[in-house]
Amino acid sequence: MDVVKSPLPDADLKTVGEALQGALVDLVDLSLVAKQVHWNVVGPRFRSVHLQLDEVVDTARQHSDTVAERASTLGVPPDGRAKTVADTSGVGVAPEGWVKDTDAVGTLVDALGAVIARMRARVDSTGEADPVSQDLFIGITADLEKHHWMFQAENRG
Amino acid sequence: MDVVKSPLPDADLKTVGEALQGALVDLVDLSLVAKQVHWNVVGPRFRSVHLQLDEVVDTARQHSDTVAERASTLGVPPDGRAKTVADTSGVGVAPEGWVKDTDAVGTLVDALGAVIARMRARVDSTGEADPVSQDLFIGITADLEKHHWMFQAENRG
Amino acid sequence: MDVVKSPLPDADLKTVGEALQGALVDLVDLSLVAKQVHWNVVGPRFRSVHLQLDEVVDTARQHSDTVAERASTLGVPPDGRAKTVADTSGVGVAPEGWVKDTDAVGTLVDALGAVIARMRARVDSTGEADPVSQDLFIGITADLEKHHWMFQAENRG
Amino acid sequence: MDVVKSPLPDADLKTVGEALQGALVDLVDLSLVAKQVHWNVVGPRFRSVHLQLDEVVDTARQHSDTVAERASTLGVPPDGRAKTVADTSGVGVAPEGWVKDTDAVGTLVDALGAVIARMRARVDSTGEADPVSQDLFIGITADLEKHHWMFQAENRG
Amino acid sequence: MDVVKSPLPDADLKTVGEALQGALVDLVDLSLVAKQVHWNVVGPRFRSVHLQLDEVVDTARQHSDTVAERASTLGVPPDGRAKTVADTSGVGVAPEGWVKDTDAVGTLVDALGAVIARMRARVDSTGEADPVSQDLFIGITADLEKHHWMFQAENRG
Amino acid sequence: MDVVKSPLPDADLKTVGEALQGALVDLVDLSLVAKQVHWNVVGPRFRSVHLQLDEVVDTARQHSDTVAERASTLGVPPDGRAKTVADTSGVGVAPEGWVKDTDAVGTLVDALGAVIARMRARVDSTGEADPVSQDLFIGITADLEKHHWMFQAENRG
Amino acid sequence: MDVVKSPLPDADLKTVGEALQGALVDLVDLSLVAKQVHWNVVGPRFRSVHLQLDEVVDTARQHSDTVAERASTLGVPPDGRAKTVADTSGVGVAPEGWVKDTDAVGTLVDALGAVIARMRARVDSTGEADPVSQDLFIGITADLEKHHWMFQAENRG
Amino acid sequence: MDVVKSPLPDADLKTVGEALQGALVDLVDLSLVAKQVHWNVVGPRFRSVHLQLDEVVDTARQHSDTVAERASTLGVPPDGRAKTVADTSGVGVAPEGWVKDTDAVGTLVDALGAVIARMRARVDSTGEADPVSQDLFIGITADLEKHHWMFQAENRG
Amino acid sequence: MDVVKSPLPDADLKTVGEALQGALVDLVDLSLVAKQVHWNVVGPRFRSVHLQLDEVVDTARQHSDTVAERASTLGVPPDGRAKTVADTSGVGVAPEGWVKDTDAVGTLVDALGAVIARMRARVDSTGEADPVSQDLFIGITADLEKHHWMFQAENRG
Amino acid sequence: MDVVKSPLPDADLKTVGEALQGALVDLVDLSLVAKQVHWNVVGPRFRSVHLQLDEVVDTARQHSDTVAERASTLGVPPDGRAKTVADTSGVGVAPEGWVKDTDAVGTLVDALGAVIARMRARVDSTGEADPVSQDLFIGITADLEKHHWMFQAENRG
Amino acid sequence: MDVVKSPLPDADLKTVGEALQGALVDLVDLSLVAKQVHWNVVGPRFRSVHLQLDEVVDTARQHSDTVAERASTLGVPPDGRAKTVADTSGVGVAPEGWVKDTDAVGTLVDALGAVIARMRARVDSTGEADPVSQDLFIGITADLEKHHWMFQAENRG
Amino acid sequence: MDVVKSPLPDADLKTVGEALQGALVDLVDLSLVAKQVHWNVVGPRFRSVHLQLDEVVDTARQHSDTVAERASTLGVPPDGRAKTVADTSGVGVAPEGWVKDTDAVGTLVDALGAVIARMRARVDSTGEADPVSQDLFIGITADLEKHHWMFQAENRG
Repeated sequence: MDVVKSPLPDADLKTVGEALQGALVDLVDLSLVAKQVHWNVVGPRFRSVHLQLDEVVDTARQHSDTVAERASTLGVPPDGRAKTVADTSGVGVAPEGWVKDTDAVGTLVDALGAVIARMRARVDSTGEADPVSQDLFIGITADLEKHHWMFQAENRG
Repeated sequence: MDVVKSPLPDADLKTVGEALQGALVDLVDLSLVAKQVHWNVVGPRFRSVHLQLDEVVDTARQHSDTVAERASTLGVPPDGRAKTVADTSGVGVAPEGWVKDTDAVGTLVDALGAVIARMRARVDSTGEADPVSQDLFIGITADLEKHHWMFQAENRG
Repeated sequence: MDVVKSPLPDADLKTVGEALQGALVDLVDLSLVAKQVHWNVVGPRFRSVHLQLDEVVDTARQHSDTVAERASTLGVPPDGRAKTVADTSGVGVAPEGWVKDTDAVGTLVDALGAVIARMRARVDSTGEADPVSQDLFIGITADLEKHHWMFQAENRG
Repeated sequence: MDVVKSPLPDADLKTVGEALQGALVDLVDLSLVAKQVHWNVVGPRFRSVHLQLDEVVDTARQHSDTVAERASTLGVPPDGRAKTVADTSGVGVAPEGWVKDTDAVGTLVDALGAVIARMRARVDSTGEADPVSQDLFIGITADLEKHHWMFQAENRG
Repeated sequence: MDVVKSPLPDADLKTVGEALQGALVDLVDLSLVAKQVHWNVVGPRFRSVHLQLDEVVDTARQHSDTVAERASTLGVPPDGRAKTVADTSGVGVAPEGWVKDTDAVGTLVDALGAVIARMRARVDSTGEADPVSQDLFIGITADLEKHHWMFQAENRG
Repeated sequence: MDVVKSPLPDADLKTVGEALQGALVDLVDLSLVAKQVHWNVVGPRFRSVHLQLDEVVDTARQHSDTVAERASTLGVPPDGRAKTVADTSGVGVAPEGWVKDTDAVGTLVDALGAVIARMRARVDSTGEADPVSQDLFIGITADLEKHHWMFQAENRG
Repeated sequence: MDVVKSPLPDADLKTVGEALQGALVDLVDLSLVAKQVHWNVVGPRFRSVHLQLDEVVDTARQHSDTVAERASTLGVPPDGRAKTVADTSGVGVAPEGWVKDTDAVGTLVDALGAVIARMRARVDSTGEADPVSQDLFIGITADLEKHHWMFQAENRG
Repeated sequence: MDVVKSPLPDADLKTVGEALQGALVDLVDLSLVAKQVHWNVVGPRFRSVHLQLDEVVDTARQHSDTVAERASTLGVPPDGRAKTVADTSGVGVAPEGWVKDTDAVGTLVDALGAVIARMRARVDSTGEADPVSQDLFIGITADLEKHHWMFQAENRG
Repeated sequence: MDVVKSPLPDADLKTVGEALQGALVDLVDLSLVAKQVHWNVVGPRFRSVHLQLDEVVDTARQHSDTVAERASTLGVPPDGRAKTVADTSGVGVAPEGWVKDTDAVGTLVDALGAVIARMRARVDSTGEADPVSQDLFIGITADLEKHHWMFQAENRG
Repeated sequence: MDVVKSPLPDADLKTVGEALQGALVDLVDLSLVAKQVHWNVVGPRFRSVHLQLDEVVDTARQHSDTVAERASTLGVPPDGRAKTVADTSGVGVAPEGWVKDTDAVGTLVDALGAVIARMRARVDSTGEADPVSQDLFIGITADLEKHHWMFQAENRG
Repeated sequence: MDVVKSPLPDADLKTVGEALQGALVDLVDLSLVAKQVHWNVVGPRFRSVHLQLDEVVDTARQHSDTVAERASTLGVPPDGRAKTVADTSGVGVAPEGWVKDTDAVGTLVDALGAVIARMRARVDSTGEADPVSQDLFIGITADLEKHHWMFQAENRG
Repeated sequence: MDVVKSPLPDADLKTVGEALQGALVDLVDLSLVAKQVHWNVVGPRFRSVHLQLDEVVDTARQHSDTVAERASTLGVPPDGRAKTVADTSGVGVAPEGWVKDTDAVGTLVDALGAVIARMRARVDSTGEADPVSQDLFIGITADLEKHHWMFQAENRG
């Protein structure tokens, strides 16, 4: 079914489509991992980390929606189904069961770090092909790096 | 790690814990399936179905949070990670790629129908063990059945 | 036309369907009676009773909508037409013309009392057949009984 | 009981009072008919028609309140009870049971058309006797005709 | 100073200008009288009357602003100064000192009755000369008569 | 295509339809002219005039929508396309390039004056044929004349 | 009628009661004067002064209400009737007819200056007798002096 | 535990600390008494008194929080526990069981009168030692006296 | 005084009435204890615990109001006076003076645990007698258990 | 008149100024075309398309304002007058009279497609000369392409 | 330039003017210091301290504006420029670079303590000269002391 | 203390870190200068300029926060202390004492012009090293240039 006529030539579309699909999977998984820790964190900093994680969830959910709709806009049907996410995410697996607050912060530092590295690569690869998509990736990177700073800052001391 | 002292005796806790974990997976997957169709639906009813699906997403996300926090409250660490969802969900797999609006409605009728049947079983199994959790399942069932009616009503004519 | 596939077996459906249809008629009529008195009340307590009645109208309208949509959800087409309401309501007929404030309070005490008795019977009859509908009736009863208390309290002194 | 001293002479009051009472009944019935179809509509356009009908309900409820309070203001006790509505409404009876979306639109086109014709007659008959009431009827007619256009526009194609 | 070029011929302007100036004074005075009673009312109905009077104040203040700006719009500088209000108002003098709640209601019935009679005369006199101003007077009359009904209704029983 | 059955007889419809179409064009053009000056005004009063013009834009946009939908409601397809506006507007052409603040105020005084004169003629011509449309024109005239006053007031001194 | 038992001894009550009554009259008159100029101002700064005056009106109305209710609270029935205001205000008479913007600013500088001087005297006279009332006068003075600064600042250049 | 270094010397701190602790107990008890009557009032004025009492509750709760946090701020740990309130409050015991509306008003007149007298003494005693705390007591007194006026006004007639 | 006619037979009323009165006292005391700790907590987690406690206060206040009004609704006058709370609460006495944050969390774990156990007993005892009241107790238990989880989670690590 | 000193050198300014002027005309015309279809669409999908078009209007109006103010910011007076729009727009002429819903969707697909192509060219041409303006064009393109996707998706099936 | 005529005699003005200028500098610097630590804090309590500091910033910014406008009101031009702040502030220099959370709390305890001491001196020195300004200083002191308590409470444990 | 692991290599980090630190200082100083003029401006345009300056303050404060947090995110501790701002800002010193409105506008034209030039240089220097930071600078430039236009536009005439 040829649904949406893409404004991009085929080669550019392939590059950008893969970047968007990869970002979608990373962001959906990030939202699931952050919720997982939100529910399972324990320790003296429980409340603070619990609240902070919901802000990561909000960021991840909003950007995943934007990224998926950008893919549809370019004529590439996005895939954010559970199995696809489980098989292709770059986030890393969250620990099972209760998580101590210190470990929770570490889990997020790692998960965000992994997604940021991949997102920066997408910024590089798409600038030529589609500055509109690149602009999305830049904005996503900015938000993720801000969360990353905060979890790193909490890891010191 | 013995984190939260459960207000329930062990046998009841096992029953209720399994019901909550099952509901969590179903609801997270329902949110992913509804988003998937939200992004991929095409056809004359695109806008209507696109908007309606986001209301399903909202319902599923809110209830999944309540259910997971209820599990934690009872001392059972909830598991809402992508792989767990992919492996144990009762929703059924969403189709890949673009979905025609008629098929989109049918997908939701089936997905909601499957989750409702399991949720009604949870209402039955938990009333004795924990009326508080049962009350959650009753509320969730009410909301899902209302969505189910609407998609069925759109399937006629 | 077989529109909505009911999650309930036939016998339960009949019980619950009749309870919902009865509740719908009572609530629509309650909203009409409360508006009728809202417009026709006179006396020193006019303003207080006039405002209080609009809160009854809000309660009755919201619950009538929920009840009717629950009936549709179960596959039973609800009937809230004027003639059906006039013929089958359990509220009792509101007086014609101006109503003194004391009488207005009495009218509401009686109307609410009649609806509450029928609603409690619906709570009893539906628990087995459909706990979801029973839960609605419990919530409706709670709200109506609270209004009932207030009008009774105003009737003393 | 002589409650409210009317600002109008008797002959004018009779004309205006009858117009207001007629409008009240039409508007209450319109709100009941629109709700009835809101609950019973089925078909591919379910969601769109379902939402649109609640806007008709809002219009009808607000104007019925204004019209009834205008009657009280002029010293004429309004009558919006179920039996009065069932016996004297100009709306026409809504169909029983499920309604296909195409028929639902047709039902509203007819119901609105009937009320509009009567409301325009009220605009004509009251201008001399009470420009304040006439102004209400003009505003009501404007709103109803706008709904009428929309349902007619949906009936084409 | 010839400030605003009037859209009306001189004769019409004189008629309409006088009506607007008269309405301005009546409405400013009504707001002052209602506040006066708002502050001085005593008796078991204190709270109800106290609150109700502030709604009269709101109505009077809003309409006085609209009326004054309409005068300016037509090129007639409005005069709402204290002495002008004291000398030319049609409202009648409010009682000095504490006012019993029953008397407070009576004061408002009289004050509103006086203003309404004058406002209806303005509706009659301006229709020909300026339908825009007439439309304002119709809207003001509607609001004042509604307040009038409510205070009359409270005076019965 | 015979889309909307008009509530008006043919002769009345012609009168009212022309008035509505004329008003639509004037109001759309007024919104474009006010925006044009909003962007190009310079001088010490820049900020004040810049903000004031956006209020004119809001007025013009809201009324143009109401007028166009009223035309559709009566069965007359409205025409608000750029070329139609450019060819038939009664507003007069806005100056090109930067506009000094004093000139900006003068431009608006003239533009509003021209539209008001035509709008008052529409009030006169439609009262018989369709009091509902006349009521719209009266409300529009009131708003435009208020803006006209303000710009005139700023032109003095 | 001995309505409210004053918390103050008679001598203090006399001092404070007179201060409150004087402040009430000044503030009501200030609201009337500011509205008068709000409607009649003309000149290039029309819009700025017109808006600024409504902020003075808001200040004056809010404080007049607080002051009057404080009088009632102390058992002194307040008097804010038009004639009392016209006869005893310390504001000074506003000019009749159109007011040029420069003069409008000057009128407010004078009016505010006069009220501030009297309000400062009330601060001095009531501190001993009733610190609660003194605190009101201090707050009122602060707000009036801020308005005074702004109008003075506009008077330079 | 020496937690907060007080900005006050010891003698002043003792004076102010006792005043704050006393005010805290009075305000917590006032909130409990007002709620008690809010739930138990009966009679024709039920609704009016019921609503009015919740405004007293709001006032008392807000000020009790401010007063307690002011004590902590000064280094004095506040004590608002039930037993402390029951043993040291100056409010007087509320009646048991249903309360007629007239009696309810009387109960509040007395309770507020008692608290106001003690609060005025705190205003006097703390001005020297800590003008910041005195300012709180002045504001609290103003609010309580306003409530006192209203209940007294309702007691007349 | 026989105020409100109970919808329950006497035996059921006794059971439910005692449960509601017990719940009222527990919830009022919980709100006082949580506020006490809110004001007196110290330590590195001050801010987090201070904020969290106000959420407990909100929960306790809202449910205490619902429970008390439910008692009145059933014809049982509720008793929430300070002495009754001090004498019959099941919460346990809060510590005097400053509380270290770790101890504060422990105090809440204990207080919530005690109230939850009693509330679960009320759920069991009232299901037969009054499902409406039971439904309230279920909802209250859900909220309290969620708070309980959070304080327990903070107690680990 | 040399009003605003541009931060860009002349050659860059020419490039960017033409891009902004072109974008302004396209966006103003897009808002007029979308409104035109909003008023004239008929057919079963009327409501859905009617609402969707107002979202296009909002997008076009907001971006046209931003683009025009960016031009002024750079020292280039923007031109958004009706004739300029009619003469230089790249949108294409909207059909006259009623438009069937399927055709309406097609009209928007074409109009948006045309504007997007021109906007992408502006992204390319301005990156060197003024990254700030380029950033605007990127954001506008993203929004228009999202609308484009939705109308294309509705065109399938 | 003699801009604003001061309501105070010269000697008083000098006292009050110096107090206001000093307070302005302290508050601006406090806002800068709190922001500096807000950005540079690290450690496990990062999030809690980071959020808390923005509340200090809000307090300091609001009060600095009030204080500066009070100075202007009295005819004393305020000076809040960076160099003036750097040279005359009483806050003390914030540390350079990252700050551990424990040190951050200590920094704020010191900074607030220093400002509070100076602010209390201003309360003492201005009461005679200008009670309006004194009232501002009292309110500022109350807010700063509350922040001071909270940071001190966090310093224990 | 090695707090945040930077996503950038050292050379890029140096470039971007200096740009962010420079922007931070400029924006903090711009907020101080704009407030300084906000408080000290006098002349007929006082109100307009006074309000406009607070919009500059809002812009500068929001962007300074974003810029500083971006620096922290990259591992560079930002420095926004008063002395740093006084010593390294590129804004230029604001005049001392009262400022005539014409001069106020000129001061802002100069201050904004200076900051914009430096910000454009930052856009150029960071695009290679960190497109995320560059994107921030582009957005800041857009906002500052819009303010610059408005003050320039006010400077003509």
